Amino acid sequence: MTKRIAIIGAGPSGLAQLRAFQSAKDAGADIPEIVCFEKQSNWGGLWNYTWRTGVDQYGEPVHGSMYRYLWSNGPKEGLEFADYSFEEHFGKQIASYPPRAVLFDYIEGRVKKAGVRDLIRFETVVRRVDFEDGKFTVTVKNLPADEEYSEEFDHVICAPGHFSTPNVPEFKGFESFKGRVLHAHDFRDALEFKDQDILIVGTSYSAEDIGSQCWKYGAKSITVSHRTAPMGHDWPDNWAEVPLLTHVDGNTAHFKDGTSRHVDAVLLCTGYQHHFPFMSEYLRLKTANRLATADLYKGVVWIDNPALFYLGMQDQWFTFNMFDAQAWWVRDVIMDRITLPDRATMEADVTDRVAREDAGEDDYDAIWYQGDYIKELIAETDYPSFDVEGACQAFKAWKGHKKAGIMTFRDNGYKSVITGTMAPKHHTPWKDALDDSLEVYLQN
Amino acid sequence: MTKRIAIIGAGPSGLAQLRAFQSAKDAGADIPEIVCFEKQSNWGGLWNYTWRTGVDQYGEPVHGSMYRYLWSNGPKEGLEFADYSFEEHFGKQIASYPPRAVLFDYIEGRVKKAGVRDLIRFETVVRRVDFEDGKFTVTVKNLPADEEYSEEFDHVICAPGHFSTPNVPEFKGFESFKGRVLHAHDFRDALEFKDQDILIVGTSYSAEDIGSQCWKYGAKSITVSHRTAPMGHDWPDNWAEVPLLTHVDGNTAHFKDGTSRHVDAVLLCTGYQHHFPFMSEYLRLKTANRLATADLYKGVVWIDNPALFYLGMQDQWFTFNMFDAQAWWVRDVIMDRITLPDRATMEADVTDRVAREDAGEDDYDAIWYQGDYIKELIAETDYPSFDVEGACQAFKAWKGHKKAGIMTFRDNGYKSVITGTMAPKHHTPWKDALDDSLEVYLQN
Ligand SMILES: Cc1cc2nc3c(=O)[nH]c(=O)nc-3n(C[C@H](O)[C@H](O)[C@H](O)COP(=O)(O)OP(=O)(O)OC[C@H]3O[C@@H](n4cnc5c(N)ncnc54)[C@H](O)[C@@H]3O)c2cc1C
Ligand SMILES: Cc1cc2nc3c(=O)[nH]c(=O)nc-3n(C[C@H](O)[C@H](O)[C@H](O)COP(=O)(O)OP(=O)(O)OC[C@H]3O[C@@H](n4cnc5c(N)ncnc54)[C@H](O)[C@@H]3O)c2cc1C
Ligand SMILES: NC(=O)c1ccc[n+]([C@@H]2O[C@H](COP(=O)([O-])OP(=O)(O)OC[C@H]3O[C@@H](n4cnc5c(N)ncnc54)[C@H](OP(=O)(O)O)[C@@H]3O)[C@@H](O)[C@H]2O)c1
Ligand SMILES: NC(=O)c1ccc[n+]([C@@H]2O[C@H](COP(=O)([O-])OP(=O)(O)OC[C@H]3O[C@@H](n4cnc5c(N)ncnc54)[C@H](OP(=O)(O)O)[C@@H]3O)[C@@H](O)[C@H]2O)c1
Repeated sequence: MTKRIAIIGAGPSGLAQLRAFQSAKDAGADIPEIVCFEKQSNWGGLWNYTWRTGVDQYGEPVHGSMYRYLWSNGPKEGLEFADYSFEEHFGKQIASYPPRAVLFDYIEGRVKKAGVRDLIRFETVVRRVDFEDGKFTVTVKNLPADEEYSEEFDHVICAPGHFSTPNVPEFKGFESFKGRVLHAHDFRDALEFKDQDILIVGTSYSAEDIGSQCWKYGAKSITVSHRTAPMGHDWPDNWAEVPLLTHVDGNTAHFKDGTSRHVDAVLLCTGYQHHFPFMSEYLRLKTANRLATADLYKGVVWIDNPALFYLGMQDQWFTFNMFDAQAWWVRDVIMDRITLPDRATMEADVTDRVAREDAGEDDYDAIWYQGDYIKELIAETDYPSFDVEGACQAFKAWKGHKKAGIMTFRDNGYKSVITGTMAPKHHTPWKDALDDSLEVYLQN
Repeated sequence: MTKRIAIIGAGPSGLAQLRAFQSAKDAGADIPEIVCFEKQSNWGGLWNYTWRTGVDQYGEPVHGSMYRYLWSNGPKEGLEFADYSFEEHFGKQIASYPPRAVLFDYIEGRVKKAGVRDLIRFETVVRRVDFEDGKFTVTVKNLPADEEYSEEFDHVICAPGHFSTPNVPEFKGFESFKGRVLHAHDFRDALEFKDQDILIVGTSYSAEDIGSQCWKYGAKSITVSHRTAPMGHDWPDNWAEVPLLTHVDGNTAHFKDGTSRHVDAVLLCTGYQHHFPFMSEYLRLKTANRLATADLYKGVVWIDNPALFYLGMQDQWFTFNMFDAQAWWVRDVIMDRITLPDRATMEADVTDRVAREDAGEDDYDAIWYQGDYIKELIAETDYPSFDVEGACQAFKAWKGHKKAGIMTFRDNGYKSVITGTMAPKHHTPWKDALDDSLEVYLQN
């Protein structure tokens, strides 16, 4: 009998899985029956922008964490699909830091070409996954129909993303702060903060990028508060880095060094949680946001029940191409092209990955570590081999460009590791490019 | 064997249920074993203010819909507990429109006195309720411990409130609106909208009250858009009522009559949904927000399974005293003091209540309809009888005072139907009283 496979989520990871199976089918293989459940009304995951915050029209927590005017924070040369280049999609090479709408178009282009949309049940949220007698029971709700139902599957591939449930710490005085307190997850439009003094807590990508957006769109001042260390870039004059927030009092924010300043709004850029309440306890991944996750053999196989897979659960230098590497590999396990070792070996693999990550000293080590992981996976499947080393070099150049100018790094271009061509310089410096539409971006 | 009872929620309704059982115990009765599950870390339901919006620290949708500077929108004389007067709690009579913190203190006072806190498992969210072989299985998650477990119960009393999951319609152009779009559920501090041109959609209590707050705390202009009819009060000069929003374009809002205006933020005061995803489909109440709900005999007994009860599911003129009337009545069914009729009779009761509500012509009919409902219930239990007619008259006077001055109605006082004393006039007119703390409010 044909196996039945459930994929949870139609973001870049879930779509990679659909594409992986479809490419095997195109090559003449018999593939299992696939059902992909997606709670949103469209595919693309985080890249599917929504103006909504909080809960959606069905009372479900809004998945989207992306915001208007978001441009890729890393070079597109680090994420290009090996089987579908930017040039194939756009008919020409494009600049290196595409805005959200452009990347959405690119993600969609590949899966439209693959013709996999019919495998997805949209507006269908997975409520519960159980396992008994060798089968998974997946209980879902068709949201517009307001109907729950269950189906059985041989495998579940869990790809719901992990940058969607915010980590929201509390600071003293929030209860009576005279302004807005929000997490990056609910940030939508930098213009909401025009002419305001904003305080950002956190120093990672969300802090850097949301702060930069707000600066670009006219915030009066940006103050960034760190728990561990300042970001240390050469910031504009109305940007300050300060120690950790201790409390707020009226509209005054107080910091660990005893200083204080007036702020109109507090933006918590404090990261996300791996939060999968729909997975039964005994199937639920609990891990920190790191490169070597807990409990996943080869970063994808749930060691307590190897019929269950997780995609994209790592912290991410690489994204789309890493999801591809994982999806092809998972496909090959399911299609019996790859055989899993015994539990002890799988556990040793996890321990080893953690140790190797911990041995790394800096961001460069981390980039190469994740590059090596991709190489390892693609060597074991028919995913088109590509110059992973070249992609690592693009990330390295990117980091140099950020050091050289935090508001100008997006004005650089890199060489595609898929087609070998150089990206054109974008027609407008990022800081002056206020219109982030696809039409305008492609006018190179 | 002692029956086991699960109560879902420790808001005013769930607390009324705890108090109902405890009063029977005080009178010498044997009461069942009771467990109340509450997802928040404290009791009080909506009255337990939180600065959080969206999802909380555990990834659960935030329950709270209340905001800073919220004062009761109806006179306290319409909601006073018959077994615990304001005078008993505060040691004196207080003014008629208490701010949130004052009402929270009052709600808490009764249950502290009753000593029922130990019956509540806080930070424990109900995930699922099933029914099989005459027993309910309630599956919950202890949030801080990140642990799920199930227990069996003979009865479930579902009191999770129904003003927590927003109804959020979409209007064309929201996707590219250059400002903030939020639902009333996420409104926290009127100062976030100081000096802004705000657009409110909806014409009910949230619209009226949030608009008034924003006016009081310095919004530049308030525009209220209606689907059915304008509110028609004598509004301040910077307040306008306009037809339904058709779309937004940049920062311009367009209305059905072809007019348009500049707005900085859109506040959707478009009501809430009865949303109980944790109740299994066959136990889940689905009803419109009205006085006569669907499928509940006497407004509380789930006719498809009369071992299940719902509290507080009606639209609300009366609140705390109605929840009490319901809770005492439900207690008496569970304690076999009241016998339920057959299904046909229960169905006829529902149909009859709907017809009688539909026959009403205006708000006054609605108030008396709900007053009669309370009288009906309390006549059948030992809940202290009180002058329900007097409470209806307080609501009638309130409506007159609102017509006379929408920004001054809270400056009036009414007579307690429990103790018979008149409320003092508040020391400061509502529109000038910017500090809404308990300490300041009680300085009469
Ligand atoms: C603000 C922000 C900016 C980012 N910018 C970049 C960038 O510039 N470049 C880059 O490469 N990466 C970026 N990322 C990283 C991002 O994680 C990946 O690009 C990518 O979106 C991850 O894909 P995914 O499919 O694993 O998860 P997601 O994109 O999160 O997709 C998961 C999908 O699963 C669905 N889902 C979740 N739960 C359920 C359920 N219970 N039932 C049914 N469906 C469900 C969701 O609706 C969603 O569609 C960014 C992330 C954030 C938060
Ligand atoms: C903005 C606003 C203002 C209001 N102002 C007034 C007013 O001025 N005067 C007035 O009389 N009424 C007012 N109300 C009406 C209000 O509905 C009632 O006063 C009262 O709070 C209802 O009590 P409840 O217990 O039924 O529901 P809630 O107060 O909503 O309490 C429900 C409780 O159940 C808990 N819960 C929900 N789901 C779960 C779960 N799955 N597991 C565990 N626990 C759960 C919640 O955390 C909450 O504590 C207002 C309502 C709103 C929205
Ligand atoms: N334009 C873009 O492409 C873009 C924009 C934004 C985000 N992203 C992506 O989104 C993902 C998530 O990034 P992120 O920045 O949101 O999360 P993150 O990388 O996990 O960083 C979390 C930050 O929050 C801080 N933090 C956590 N808890 C805190 C607390 N209690 N008090 C103070 N600080 C606290 C951490 O500080 P410590 O360092 O002290 O731990 C860290 O700086 C990344 O993949 C990123 O690439 C991309
Ligand atoms: N200070 C206070 O005490 C206070 C403050 C706020 C709220 N509350 C309480 O909170 C509860 C909820 O009140 P609420 O005002 O939030 O909700 P509500 O009474 O249900 O009213 C919903 C409003 O939204 C409108 N609406 C719904 N869908 C719409 C759509 N698609 N387009 C346009 N308009 C739409 C409705 O218009 P139609 O009339 O056209 O249907 C109605 O005006 C009440 O119990 C109230 O007492 C109390």
